[in-house]
Amino acid sequence: MTQSTPKILSIAGSDSGGGAGIQADIKTFTALHCYGMSALTALTSQNTLGVHQVHAVPVDFITSQIRHVITDLGVDALKTGMLYSKEVIEGVVDTLQELSVRAPLVVDPVMVSTSGHRLLNQDALTALQGKLLPKTTLCTPNIPEAELLTGRSIASVRDMLSAATRLNSVNTLVKGGHLTFSVDEVQRAIAEVRRGDFGDVGDVTNPTNVTVHGETFAAAATNNDSTNTATAYVLDTYAQLRGNPSTQGTHKSGEERLVVDILYQRPQGHLDIFIHPFVSSTSTHGTGCTLSAALAAYLGGSRSGSSRDTSACTRMTMAEAVQAALTYTRLGIEHSEGLGAGNGPLNHMHSMHRGTHITTPLTPRTTRQPTPLTTHLITTAGVWWDTYIAHPFVHQLATGTLPSSSFRHYIAQDYIYLLHYARIHSLAGYKSRSMGDLEAFARITSQIVQESAMHRDYCREWGVDEKTLMSTPESAQNIAYTRYLADVGHSGSLLDLVVAVASCLLGYGEIGRRLKTSANTGCPISPGVVCIKDNNPYWKWIEDYASDDFQAAVFDGIDMLERMAEEDHLGADHLAHLSNIFTTCCKLECGFWDMGLHRL
Amino acid sequence: MTQSTPKILSIAGSDSGGGAGIQADIKTFTALHCYGMSALTALTSQNTLGVHQVHAVPVDFITSQIRHVITDLGVDALKTGMLYSKEVIEGVVDTLQELSVRAPLVVDPVMVSTSGHRLLNQDALTALQGKLLPKTTLCTPNIPEAELLTGRSIASVRDMLSAATRLNSVNTLVKGGHLTFSVDEVQRAIAEVRRGDFGDVGDVTNPTNVTVHGETFAAAATNNDSTNTATAYVLDTYAQLRGNPSTQGTHKSGEERLVVDILYQRPQGHLDIFIHPFVSSTSTHGTGCTLSAALAAYLGGSRSGSSRDTSACTRMTMAEAVQAALTYTRLGIEHSEGLGAGNGPLNHMHSMHRGTHITTPLTPRTTRQPTPLTTHLITTAGVWWDTYIAHPFVHQLATGTLPSSSFRHYIAQDYIYLLHYARIHSLAGYKSRSMGDLEAFARITSQIVQESAMHRDYCREWGVDEKTLMSTPESAQNIAYTRYLADVGHSGSLLDLVVAVASCLLGYGEIGRRLKTSANTGCPISPGVVCIKDNNPYWKWIEDYASDDFQAAVFDGIDMLERMAEEDHLGADHLAHLSNIFTTCCKLECGFWDMGLHRL
Repeated sequence: MTQSTPKILSIAGSDSGGGAGIQADIKTFTALHCYGMSALTALTSQNTLGVHQVHAVPVDFITSQIRHVITDLGVDALKTGMLYSKEVIEGVVDTLQELSVRAPLVVDPVMVSTSGHRLLNQDALTALQGKLLPKTTLCTPNIPEAELLTGRSIASVRDMLSAATRLNSVNTLVKGGHLTFSVDEVQRAIAEVRRGDFGDVGDVTNPTNVTVHGETFAAAATNNDSTNTATAYVLDTYAQLRGNPSTQGTHKSGEERLVVDILYQRPQGHLDIFIHPFVSSTSTHGTGCTLSAALAAYLGGSRSGSSRDTSACTRMTMAEAVQAALTYTRLGIEHSEGLGAGNGPLNHMHSMHRGTHITTPLTPRTTRQPTPLTTHLITTAGVWWDTYIAHPFVHQLATGTLPSSSFRHYIAQDYIYLLHYARIHSLAGYKSRSMGDLEAFARITSQIVQESAMHRDYCREWGVDEKTLMSTPESAQNIAYTRYLADVGHSGSLLDLVVAVASCLLGYGEIGRRLKTSANTGCPISPGVVCIKDNNPYWKWIEDYASDDFQAAVFDGIDMLERMAEEDHLGADHLAHLSNIFTTCCKLECGFWDMGLHRL
Repeated sequence: MTQSTPKILSIAGSDSGGGAGIQADIKTFTALHCYGMSALTALTSQNTLGVHQVHAVPVDFITSQIRHVITDLGVDALKTGMLYSKEVIEGVVDTLQELSVRAPLVVDPVMVSTSGHRLLNQDALTALQGKLLPKTTLCTPNIPEAELLTGRSIASVRDMLSAATRLNSVNTLVKGGHLTFSVDEVQRAIAEVRRGDFGDVGDVTNPTNVTVHGETFAAAATNNDSTNTATAYVLDTYAQLRGNPSTQGTHKSGEERLVVDILYQRPQGHLDIFIHPFVSSTSTHGTGCTLSAALAAYLGGSRSGSSRDTSACTRMTMAEAVQAALTYTRLGIEHSEGLGAGNGPLNHMHSMHRGTHITTPLTPRTTRQPTPLTTHLITTAGVWWDTYIAHPFVHQLATGTLPSSSFRHYIAQDYIYLLHYARIHSLAGYKSRSMGDLEAFARITSQIVQESAMHRDYCREWGVDEKTLMSTPESAQNIAYTRYLADVGHSGSLLDLVVAVASCLLGYGEIGRRLKTSANTGCPISPGVVCIKDNNPYWKWIEDYASDDFQAAVFDGIDMLERMAEEDHLGADHLAHLSNIFTTCCKLECGFWDMGLHRL
C-alpha cells in the first residue's frame, strides 16, 4: 500500500434493512477502500416499506463511541446522519471540539422524512444551524432540507444557487434529486450564470467563479466550458441508438430530464454546477446516506481502485470529490436490484468486480453510459482528438476550398494506408480466439477494401489507374502511422490493437457526421466554418463517411471495443496504456492531415 | 448478473471501532458481493483496546428488526453473534421459527471474551445448547467455547475431533486458533485418523469419512491424500528462500507451527481437517465475526469475484464454503494494517483491488503464499504436471537405465528445441515495454544458449559435431511444442508467453531438484525409483538442472511471472486461458519425453 487506508467515522443511525444509515455508510466506505467506523445514534427496525420502530441511543453512549474510536484509531474524515435532538447535536459538536478533530466533516442534515414529515424539532434545528454547520466542511441538504434551513422555497436552478450560498457551513452541496429540469431550462440557467446574472447569491459575482460539469448528454448542451473538452456526437448517437433500449426510435432531444446539484465553496465563493440525466428508479432508499458517506471517503483520501495508485498522494479537490461521489451514488441507483417491496436500496458494489473504480474514469457499462472506454479514450486524447476532428484539412474539405493537389496527394497516400489498415485487421483476426471475432475481422477487412473503391473512383476521374496508385511512394507520415499499428499488433494483446484501429474509425465517423449535419443545418463545425454541399468537389467523400453503412460500422466497432474491455477487467496501468495508444493514433491522424495539406 | 445478489442477515452486536460485530459482518458481506442486513442485539463503545461500554437492545426490538427485514427483503443465509441472554436467544429462535426460515444459519457462539471471561450466564448457555444449536446449520466455536459447550478440555487434535462431534448443531466447525501444533503432531494425528483411530468420536468410524485439506507446506507433509495432487518442491524452496523474509536462512523444517480447524458434518458423519500455517499477528480482533460472516455469505450463495461467473449456479459444498471462508479470514489477518493501539482489526478488503476473489483460486501474494499464479498453474495442470515430472524417461535418467540411443535422440532434438526456446525469449523481449524486462529476456536468451553447451559436450563425446547437430531433422513433437510457443507469442500478450515458457523452466527445475535430492538421500522419487549418482551416465544432466545457477533462474522466472500477474489484474477468463496454455505445454513436454524414449 502506498499510503494507509483512510479511516472514516460515521455518526448516524442503524437501518436494519441495510440500505441506509451506518450500514450504507460501511458498505460505501468498504467499496471505496476505506476503513469504516461508526458511532450509532439511533436504531431503526426498518425495511424498504419504511421505518417501523425507533430506538434512541443515549447521548452519553453516542459521545462515548466517538471518543473511544477517535482516541484509539484516529480519523481521516467524518459524516453525520441522523442526529435526533439538540442534546445529541451539541454532544457531537462538543466531543469533536474536545478531541480537536480537524478532519473533514460532512453533514447530511437529516431533517425531513421521505413522506415530508419534520424529523427535528425547532431546538434541534437551531442547534444544527448554530453549532454544527459552522464546523461543517460540507453540508449536503436536499431541496426540502435546504428550504427548511434557508426559510426560502426552491423551484428553479436559480433558487438552488441562492440556497447553496446561504447555509453557514464552509461548503454546501444542494442536491437536486427532488426537482428535474428540461434541457432548455438548464441551458438558460447556465447562460444566465455565465452572463454574471446569478440572482440573489450574495458574494458570488464573477462568472469565472462558476464551473459547469456535465455528462455526455449535457456536455453537448454546455459545449463551451464543459470540463469535457473533447466531445463526440458518434457517442451520443450510439447511446441513443444502442445504449438505452427504452428510447430507441422514440428519443426526442429536449424530452430528457436533467438533475442539477450545486456546490458552493467558501472562502473563494466558487460555484460548481453538476448536471446529469435524471435516473428514474424506485431504488433510491439510502441515496443521501450513500452520497455523504462517499463524500467523506473521498475527502478522507480515498482513491479506491488500484492500491498501487501512487498519484493517490494528492488529495482530491472538493469539486473532484463531489463529482466522484455523485457518480458513485448514481451508479448505485443504476445498478440497483429492486430488493424488497418498497423503495429498494442502492447497489454499493457496482464497481467492485471490475477491480478498478470510478476515480479511474472507467465506469461499468450502463444504459446511461454504454461507452465508458470509448468515452475515456476520447476524453484523455483531449486536444489531440479535437485537432484531429477539426483540422484545417477537414475544414477545407467542408468548405470545398481544399486545393485539389492536396486532396490528390492525400487520396493516394490514404489508399496505401487502407491497404495496411486492412492487413492490420487480418492480423487482428489471427490474434482472435473466437469464431465470432474471426468472422468480424474478416468482414471488416472486406469492408475496408470496399471503402477504397472511393479512392479508385476519384483517381479514375483524375486519369490515375490502380497500378500507378498502388506504386505511390509512401510518405514518412504514412509509414509512421501504419507501422505503428502493426507494432501494436505484434507487441500487445488483441484489445491493444482494437483500440489502436479505433482512432481512424471513430474519427472519420465523427467527421462525416459533423460535416453532413453542418451542410444540412447550416450550423458551423467550428466558428465560421460551415460545410457546403453544392459545388463542393469533396461532397462524395463527406457522404461516404456520413453514410448509414459507415456509421453502422462505427457503432459495430464501439460494440466490440466495449465488449472486449468489459471482458478484460482493465487495471489502471493497462487503461493508461490504451489511452496512450489511442492518443498516439490521434496525433498520427493529425500528421496525416498535415501530410495531405502540405503534400509532404 | 447471472443470479441475484445473496442477502445475508447478521444478528449481532455493534462494534464502534469497526473491527467486529455487524460492522465486520457488513464489510465481509460486501467484500464477498452479498447484500448485508443487520438486526442489532447490543451496542458497544469499543476500540482496539477493548470494550468500554455496552448498551443492550430490548428483545422486542431485536425480534422486530429480524421480522421486518425477513418479511420484506427475504434472506439467503444468517449468522448470529452476540446474543446476550436466554430471552434474546429464545426470541431469535422463536422469530425464525415463526417466519419459517429455512436458509442456512451460522451460529458463532460468543460466550467467552478474549480475556477469558464468561459472557453468558448458565440460563443463556442452556438456551443456546437446547434451543438454538438444534436449528443451527453450522456452529463455529473456538477452543474455549467448545470446551464450555462440551464440558471437556481440549489440548490436542484428537480432543478437537471429539469436541466437533459432540455439539448438537447440524454441522460444527471447531476453530483451532487458540492452539498451535508442530508438523509432527499434525502428521501423527492424521496418520491415526487414517488408520481409523479417531478416539472418542461416536459415530465416526470409517477412514474414508475423513478429508484432509492443507496449504503448500502441509500438503508436502500429507502428500498421499491431499487434495493438491500436484506438488512442486521448487515452490516450497522458493517460498522458503524468497517468500518469507523472516525465515530466510533460519527456517528449520519442524519449527513451523500449524493451526487445525475441524469440520464435522451430519448426517453422514464426515470429518474435514483443515491445516494451515499459524499466522502470528496481533491484528486478530474480529476474526470470529469475520469467519462466521464469510461462512454465511458462502453458504448463502456468494461466489464473489466475476459477476459473469455462470458456474455460480451450483452451491458450494459445506467443506468448500469452510475452506473459502478460512482463506478469506486468514488473508484478512495477513493483510491487516495494525490500526489502533491494541489488537487491530482484519483487512476485509484484501482481494478487492484485484477484481477477482478467492473462489477463483488466485489469491493475492503474501509472504505465506508468494506464488499464487504458479501454484494455480501447477495445480490445474494436475495429472499432466505429475506425468511430466515423473515420466518413465525421467525415471530412467534417474536410475541410469535409459537406453543411450534414446538419450542421444532426445539430446539432438532438445538442442534444436533450445534454439527455438531462445528465440521465443527474444520475441518476449520484443513484446516488452520496460528496460528491465528487455534486459531480463536478453539475459535469459544468453543463458539458454549457454545451457545448450551441455548438449554440444555430450555430442562431442559421441563424435557428433555442432554442424551435424544443427541439421538434425526436427521431429513432429518438437515442431508441435516450439511452434505452439511461437504462436502464443504472436497471438497474445507478454504474460501469455511468459506462462507458456514457464512449463519447461519449472519442470526441469523440479526434476533436477528431485533427482539430486533422491540421489543424496536415497529416498525414492516415485515408488521404487531411487536416483543414483555412481555409474550414472546421465549424472551430468541431472547436476546441470539441479545446479544453483539453474535453480536461481527458476526462481527468477517465478518472480517475473508473479509480478506480471499482479500487474495484470487477472480476470477469471484470462486466468483460465493461462491455465490452458500451461497445461498444454505440460502435455507437450510429456510428448517430448515420449519422443525421446521411443525415438520418434
